[in-house]
Amino acid sequence: MQHHPDKEIMAELLPHVRRCQELASKHGINDIFQDNGGKLLQVLLITGLRVIPGREGNDARDAEGNEFELKSVNIHLTKQFSTHHHLNPAIIEKYRQVDWIFAVYEGIEIKSIYHLSPQDLEFYFSKWEKKWHDDGGSDINNPKIPLKFVTERGNLVYSI
Amino acid sequence: MQHHPDKEIMAELLPHVRRCQELASKHGINDIFQDNGGKLLQVLLITGLRVIPGREGNDARDAEGNEFELKSVNIHLTKQFSTHHHLNPAIIEKYRQVDWIFAVYEGIEIKSIYHLSPQDLEFYFSKWEKKWHDDGGSDINNPKIPLKFVTERGNLVYSI
Repeated sequence: MQHHPDKEIMAELLPHVRRCQELASKHGINDIFQDNGGKLLQVLLITGLRVIPGREGNDARDAEGNEFELKSVNIHLTKQFSTHHHLNPAIIEKYRQVDWIFAVYEGIEIKSIYHLSPQDLEFYFSKWEKKWHDDGGSDINNPKIPLKFVTERGNLVYSI
Repeated sequence: MQHHPDKEIMAELLPHVRRCQELASKHGINDIFQDNGGKLLQVLLITGLRVIPGREGNDARDAEGNEFELKSVNIHLTKQFSTHHHLNPAIIEKYRQVDWIFAVYEGIEIKSIYHLSPQDLEFYFSKWEKKWHDDGGSDINNPKIPLKFVTERGNLVYSI
């Protein structure tokens, strides 16, 4: 196997990528290249939220201890936010306990951040719960929340 | 919501992050922060493989047109390679048609790359296929390939 000549460009960029990961690690993000880690870092720095160590998923907390669910979308790829690959009533119940932060990206460039309460999202929670029961208790594969719903219903907390 | 002071450090890093994404885009990777995009870029540059445009998953091809399935693991987080969230016989059949490249990372630092043939992995393919049938045709949620299996059975094609 033979290297691509662009490997040299990557070598130049690596020290900066490392600094980015160091900053991410300081803020509780193990890996910027997984699960939108690098974007999550940016959202944390903009909002002042902190990730909750040892928790799965994108859980964060503000200075007063309020918990948040963080989601992001790259609108170059899709106009919907992902939720969970195996959604079930236990996860929906958790979703009802927290506020939600939705970050909107074009590629890797952040464009805006919206804040929604669980009440704002109850339409989806109820719909998913009903679907789960109607399907005989079968986990739902990653139901989506449309960007349009988020921008119309949400409170804009950041915009470039 | 109030910015974290480290937002300034991120602002300094952003131009380099953008260059990294530009390089990634040139090599067919839409988003370095999702699905190990930044790591995939490094693997492509090291191996000279090209991603196949418009294909889902980590499919790549060499100069002769041979197809490869690319996987990576961060050994700070786990000692197993992920496969697919909804594995079924159709995907296993596709897995049998291609060679496999396994990249081993510590955090975001690449340590080694291994090459395995589908014959090397048939043990797992058969096991998953049997499980799928035994479970009445229920998709398997992300069965793993252990790092130990890959390092013992694979051909080491890159090491720092």
